[in-house]
Amino acid sequence: MEVGFLGLGIMGTAMARNLIKHGFNVTVWNRTPAKCEELVKEGAAHGRNPADIVKKCNITFAMLADPDVALSVVFDENGVLEQITSSKGYVDMSTVDSITSSKISKAVTEKGGRFVEAPVSGSKKPAEDGALVILAAGDKLLYEEVIPAFNAMGKKSFYLGDVGNGAKMKLVVNMIMGSMMTAFSEGLAVADKAGLSQQTLLDILDLGAIGNGMFRLKGPTMLQHSFPPAFPLKHQQKDMRLALALGDEVAQPMPVAAVSNELYKKARSLGLEDHDFSAVYHAVSEKHDATNGIQTNT
Amino acid sequence: MEVGFLGLGIMGTAMARNLIKHGFNVTVWNRTPAKCEELVKEGAAHGRNPADIVKKCNITFAMLADPDVALSVVFDENGVLEQITSSKGYVDMSTVDSITSSKISKAVTEKGGRFVEAPVSGSKKPAEDGALVILAAGDKLLYEEVIPAFNAMGKKSFYLGDVGNGAKMKLVVNMIMGSMMTAFSEGLAVADKAGLSQQTLLDILDLGAIGNGMFRLKGPTMLQHSFPPAFPLKHQQKDMRLALALGDEVAQPMPVAAVSNELYKKARSLGLEDHDFSAVYHAVSEKHDATNGIQTNT
Amino acid sequence: MEVGFLGLGIMGTAMARNLIKHGFNVTVWNRTPAKCEELVKEGAAHGRNPADIVKKCNITFAMLADPDVALSVVFDENGVLEQITSSKGYVDMSTVDSITSSKISKAVTEKGGRFVEAPVSGSKKPAEDGALVILAAGDKLLYEEVIPAFNAMGKKSFYLGDVGNGAKMKLVVNMIMGSMMTAFSEGLAVADKAGLSQQTLLDILDLGAIGNGMFRLKGPTMLQHSFPPAFPLKHQQKDMRLALALGDEVAQPMPVAAVSNELYKKARSLGLEDHDFSAVYHAVSEKHDATNGIQTNT
Amino acid sequence: MEVGFLGLGIMGTAMARNLIKHGFNVTVWNRTPAKCEELVKEGAAHGRNPADIVKKCNITFAMLADPDVALSVVFDENGVLEQITSSKGYVDMSTVDSITSSKISKAVTEKGGRFVEAPVSGSKKPAEDGALVILAAGDKLLYEEVIPAFNAMGKKSFYLGDVGNGAKMKLVVNMIMGSMMTAFSEGLAVADKAGLSQQTLLDILDLGAIGNGMFRLKGPTMLQHSFPPAFPLKHQQKDMRLALALGDEVAQPMPVAAVSNELYKKARSLGLEDHDFSAVYHAVSEKHDATNGIQTNT
Repeated sequence: MEVGFLGLGIMGTAMARNLIKHGFNVTVWNRTPAKCEELVKEGAAHGRNPADIVKKCNITFAMLADPDVALSVVFDENGVLEQITSSKGYVDMSTVDSITSSKISKAVTEKGGRFVEAPVSGSKKPAEDGALVILAAGDKLLYEEVIPAFNAMGKKSFYLGDVGNGAKMKLVVNMIMGSMMTAFSEGLAVADKAGLSQQTLLDILDLGAIGNGMFRLKGPTMLQHSFPPAFPLKHQQKDMRLALALGDEVAQPMPVAAVSNELYKKARSLGLEDHDFSAVYHAVSEKHDATNGIQTNT
Repeated sequence: MEVGFLGLGIMGTAMARNLIKHGFNVTVWNRTPAKCEELVKEGAAHGRNPADIVKKCNITFAMLADPDVALSVVFDENGVLEQITSSKGYVDMSTVDSITSSKISKAVTEKGGRFVEAPVSGSKKPAEDGALVILAAGDKLLYEEVIPAFNAMGKKSFYLGDVGNGAKMKLVVNMIMGSMMTAFSEGLAVADKAGLSQQTLLDILDLGAIGNGMFRLKGPTMLQHSFPPAFPLKHQQKDMRLALALGDEVAQPMPVAAVSNELYKKARSLGLEDHDFSAVYHAVSEKHDATNGIQTNT
Repeated sequence: MEVGFLGLGIMGTAMARNLIKHGFNVTVWNRTPAKCEELVKEGAAHGRNPADIVKKCNITFAMLADPDVALSVVFDENGVLEQITSSKGYVDMSTVDSITSSKISKAVTEKGGRFVEAPVSGSKKPAEDGALVILAAGDKLLYEEVIPAFNAMGKKSFYLGDVGNGAKMKLVVNMIMGSMMTAFSEGLAVADKAGLSQQTLLDILDLGAIGNGMFRLKGPTMLQHSFPPAFPLKHQQKDMRLALALGDEVAQPMPVAAVSNELYKKARSLGLEDHDFSAVYHAVSEKHDATNGIQTNT
Repeated sequence: MEVGFLGLGIMGTAMARNLIKHGFNVTVWNRTPAKCEELVKEGAAHGRNPADIVKKCNITFAMLADPDVALSVVFDENGVLEQITSSKGYVDMSTVDSITSSKISKAVTEKGGRFVEAPVSGSKKPAEDGALVILAAGDKLLYEEVIPAFNAMGKKSFYLGDVGNGAKMKLVVNMIMGSMMTAFSEGLAVADKAGLSQQTLLDILDLGAIGNGMFRLKGPTMLQHSFPPAFPLKHQQKDMRLALALGDEVAQPMPVAAVSNELYKKARSLGLEDHDFSAVYHAVSEKHDATNGIQTNT
């Protein structure tokens, strides 16, 4: 199967490689062309620009950095849109908000093309292992057609209905994740202050019904106040904010998410925005004398 | 090894049975004697009262309903204390607060005895399977001596230091669990209102890094608004309250736990205290017209 | 002094009338012309459209329903912008977000005109009494020039610097107001459940240091669960949301406002959005049996 | 009228003085007798101990430091209880919890005496000015009998029913106060970060419907990060905790109070417990680089 792939960041490179490994004929493009070389050695063709790739391939995947890039790759000169026709399918796997997704969807379908949004759950390691979880929405037939490609990149894909639902579902998942992290941080912090062993707490959690991969993975580094950025705190906080906005839209109160969001803001105010989102633990547990700056001569 | 066992509720019966199965000579006692019969058929001896059992056995375990019963079994007539001497060990596995635990510890050690508190993490099924997690604290030598018995009842035991630490650790674990449940409930509720499939949300969570046994076990029944009481909501709320009090003692703010606790109170105010603690979902998601009772003639 | 006035809703009519009373020559315009008649009887001239008024008057005030109307009055055909020249001043007293305000400011100043945003604190009664508090920002000289007009409409005006600051200050004030209302509601609710007289609580609050006009005004009707809309709950919730967004922008955590905002969302989910914002009390205090809908056959 | 007065701290001295000024024959006692001298010069008699005073006076008032002192003055040797008979009335105006109050009430009434609890709202200045607000509960006839004395010490007294209601009402009032203070702090903090003048915010608040004595009094010193202890933060946090416990008892969720309470805990964790409770502003607004202590070599 002939497919295009736009965007070769950490995620995109791993995903395109899995397509190649599973026998797809992949034509790749990246804004910085050097990043294509490695995959070309592994069997990929190199496209000159997005339009070029769409022209050549009936189905094109994209994994781009953010909404702005996702829009420019479609709408700019030599962009996806120039070559969209009724035989073309475009599958955007970038994490974008539902408004961006809808804009792209509208433009592609107005030219007769088919569109699927398919943000993923999982980061570098699952991308390399072909173990992503894919949250697809949009054109049902196109979704079914690309299932073999999704199976090469992910361990499971879900079809969620209308365009926008992929983005929304991802927000809900990340909101739960973000609140679990703040609850976990509070537990680690109070254990420490109460004189309990934090390592033993991790061991106990891991053996019980609430044990999970995130606690297992991030707990040990959190105890060392080390937060290498797998998922940057500022992105987690943005997702909390957008999930709360979704709740606002549908009048669903979410006080736990709201308070968790304020803790991420607190962490941002402490300069932790580029650390991993587990750095919220630092904001929860901080111990220091804040009486500096208090006037005492009154 | 000759051991006593006091308290044959659902948990205690399963635990004593596992001791018998692993070759311990167990003498059991229960306030309602009928509950002893089954275990006697399986090989247990029947003690007349707590004092009788302590007299006969060097080590006695207890698994009692609540702090009041735990205290009365020790201090009342024919209670544990009457036969405590320097050769005796008493291991209370009931879930009690740290003040109760300390009272019992003090009384036992003042008579020369040795004491371990050992609350467990896990409910009926893990008790039956010998798969409890045991949070032990107190006399270190006694702890080491009873490890074979702990291995019969649980999959893992931890020694946590001074008496009181077992109770505290359990509160921390339950507090994290309680906040995870409220975050999960908010996610399920907003997914529903936003028109996303809740079942798909469960599936996605289960495949990702935050997937865990509690979501897997309780999610499906929660979607049906069914909350058969495995761990009653009123007990979860009590543990949230006590965990917050622990945070208060050591000056650790825990806003996520505090807000979660208010949601459990909300659930109590709706009459859900005897349902499973997952019934907090009902409080989070409730949809109804509350305009009844509002005066409109002003 | 010759001034124009655009927008004769409840607020605008009262404000324009105060200008007339204080000797200003006022030319009024309203989308529905009938609303001008009353003021014309009291001495106002009637302008055909916004452009017409700006042409005639060097300074024009506006008090419009919402951002959309504020924009259309400026940018549409026969709008304010058509007649803006370097000698003209435009003072928009509507409550709009800072983006809307900036758009208008940019358009007016690019044509050489001067612009002041001046949202007000206070509703119908203070507008009638000339007792509004005016939060002005933008062109300093224009501000100083219109002080006599502000004095006719308000008891006090403040100059807050750059355009946008008026809107921001109003959000901060309303955020404090919204959180005070939720705290007040919690107090009334717990007093009631604890068997204390709510009326006595109102009396005690009124005598102490935290007594204030809002508690005094709204408390008695809240006790009757009557919430005649002076400031609709949906608008208060919108201001809470925008104030939290402002906090997000500048990385200031505001957990009390965040939790209060969720209570207003809760009230919206109960259908209370068009009641007064004090109806959040109904959401805080609701007492009912929510066990309907719970599956019991499990 | 012949009355006794126990406890001559800052509050008690001012209150006893007002009784003297209004023509009451007052016999005073204080643990440190030196504190009686001043009032003796002003016309008071000096009693040797609480029992002595109760013997001499049919009605005795008390204003003691805390629950422990309140209990010891009643139950210790030469305490109030020794001389309680059916003709005696005891009015405890100290701020104590409802359990302490009930213990004293029970002991006094079992000996045939009459009891009123009467905690006050207001601190030093209102005590001196005879402008306290008195929250009385217990024996209705005794309450009516002592109204002239209450009128000498306070501007208003309320009869709240059963013993315990005085303490509860005070908690509710202080809980509202505590949440207003956190909301106020969030407003001041976000104004500052958003580049708005905090002084102007104070001015605007003061002119509007939510303006109140507490904002007016404490705002200006808060802006200077100066928190001279009028009501210590640790006491405010204790009252928040007890108010939340009252809510727990009656199943009234209070998320705004709960989150506010965590902010006071945060302030305690920063070492601010002995400052005025307005120091919670320092915890809300703190700006500092917390990246110290984060491991970067991972």
